[in-house]
Amino acid sequence: MRITLLSGGVGGAKLALGFYQIDCELTVIANTGDDIIMHGLHVSPDPDILIYTLADVVNPEQGWGFQNETFHVAQALGRYGREIWFQLGDGDLATHIHRSALLASGATLSETIDSIRTSLGVTARILPLSDDPVRTLLHTDLGMMHLQEYLVRRRCEPMVSSIEFQGSAGASPAPGVIDAIDNADLVVIAPSNPLISIGPILAVAGIRDALRRRRQTVAAVCPIVGGKSLKGPTDKMMAQLGYDVSPAAIAGMYRDISSTLILDSADDGECAAVDAAGMTPILLPTVMRTLAEKLHLTRAIIVRCGSSR
Amino acid sequence: MRITLLSGGVGGAKLALGFYQIDCELTVIANTGDDIIMHGLHVSPDPDILIYTLADVVNPEQGWGFQNETFHVAQALGRYGREIWFQLGDGDLATHIHRSALLASGATLSETIDSIRTSLGVTARILPLSDDPVRTLLHTDLGMMHLQEYLVRRRCEPMVSSIEFQGSAGASPAPGVIDAIDNADLVVIAPSNPLISIGPILAVAGIRDALRRRRQTVAAVCPIVGGKSLKGPTDKMMAQLGYDVSPAAIAGMYRDISSTLILDSADDGECAAVDAAGMTPILLPTVMRTLAEKLHLTRAIIVRCGSSR
Repeated sequence: MRITLLSGGVGGAKLALGFYQIDCELTVIANTGDDIIMHGLHVSPDPDILIYTLADVVNPEQGWGFQNETFHVAQALGRYGREIWFQLGDGDLATHIHRSALLASGATLSETIDSIRTSLGVTARILPLSDDPVRTLLHTDLGMMHLQEYLVRRRCEPMVSSIEFQGSAGASPAPGVIDAIDNADLVVIAPSNPLISIGPILAVAGIRDALRRRRQTVAAVCPIVGGKSLKGPTDKMMAQLGYDVSPAAIAGMYRDISSTLILDSADDGECAAVDAAGMTPILLPTVMRTLAEKLHLTRAIIVRCGSSR
Repeated sequence: MRITLLSGGVGGAKLALGFYQIDCELTVIANTGDDIIMHGLHVSPDPDILIYTLADVVNPEQGWGFQNETFHVAQALGRYGREIWFQLGDGDLATHIHRSALLASGATLSETIDSIRTSLGVTARILPLSDDPVRTLLHTDLGMMHLQEYLVRRRCEPMVSSIEFQGSAGASPAPGVIDAIDNADLVVIAPSNPLISIGPILAVAGIRDALRRRRQTVAAVCPIVGGKSLKGPTDKMMAQLGYDVSPAAIAGMYRDISSTLILDSADDGECAAVDAAGMTPILLPTVMRTLAEKLHLTRAIIVRCGSSR
């Protein structure tokens, strides 16, 4: 069974791991709006999180970076007065150095992701939203800032007034992205932040339209459970941007591209509102702490949504 | 007393340390013909060796790299199939990342060296031969190769037929280089390889002429002692290129720019030949194993050569 997953970082990677561990042909369309140049190196947080997670080398506590990571280079960079608010482990830096060297020699972002994932033994395809640069910028009460600055350096404290996907207007979907949407048996939107993780993917011309065309077999996993984010500042950002922090609000964002919204079993009270907002609610346990929970959720998604085409 | 030293890497850095530790105002004109792009990062071996040595953080056994260095990034780069014949420690990589980031943001090579040395507390000035790229290429029986490939990857095994300083014709001396030669009380040519360490410096337009103008107060320390190199493949390369491996042959290379050749005390039998080749021989103990020997040599050079202007 061919599954195509739209995903951000840590939250989406959990679902990706579930699909990866069961018998299906997985393609992940990864958010690269978070990409940032640090110390001249191209850092691509979400693809790396996905690769490290699927390769089973990710730091299990934080969900990003390598297990048993050291920080010798970062310490030495500090000695040169460089800003080191963005944690870069030694193993992680090797990834960024490799990616940057490939890009400098003319490789596309897609090719760099392929090189990194195959080197680490990951067989699932991971595609960037685009090979063209798309940067997620936040307009806040402290001015405009790169998403990583908001998330990491500013600890999500600034008030967000709007979000901009710089470059998305002129960006083309990466090779394989539209195909992966068109030809999957099921497309799943991970419970990643709809504004800053799924948003940049949908902002690239052609991707939203491709999803619309097959809306009946697109299922989204709701990132809001019990009125809060499963992870990260989704709830806070939704509230600051004037959304209700509710599954129905998520349904309002996704209803044109996805027929089904998978809600956590605890949110059965939200089903009517989701239905009214234009998506079919399905209740499943969506909180994935263990691998067993990930497998259970992904299998249930396939059973409930995979054969409805 | 203002001393300007022309220097390559490990051998020259020993002499630089001697001058640095005694009371003089030291400027080092460093060979940057060895610079190489590794994994997209600008590696500048000789300036780094000089900085690490003067900062007293160099690995004392090998004379390059940091003390107590780890190699976590290099190991991880190997996992990505990258060539790792050029040893890059984690601390060292931070230097290369910092330098590359500065260069990418528009800094000159001189400015990167200044940033690195001041961060590590080195007060001596260290100037590259040029801010323009000059690359030392060797033509050998195995084809043309970058000097680092010859030295490190090929362990000096190829037969060298000629040496090329690519870019030297169009390169300008780095800011301060000609001044440092013109205004020093004494210019010293370190016992570095005359072909591949001092050669690239002299190949940049204007540097050789500046030395010629003050030849009387330029002293060179002979890199050949007892018919062999003090360090590295100087003897082998000289022989392959048709030179005698002797102080007199060194005198033949330097006589137009330097009045004095400092020979090791053991080579008193070479004095007549050096004299005949056009340089005044001075015998001093030139083998520097300990700091005391470095200080002794540099003090003796100042006493013997520094007041003859």
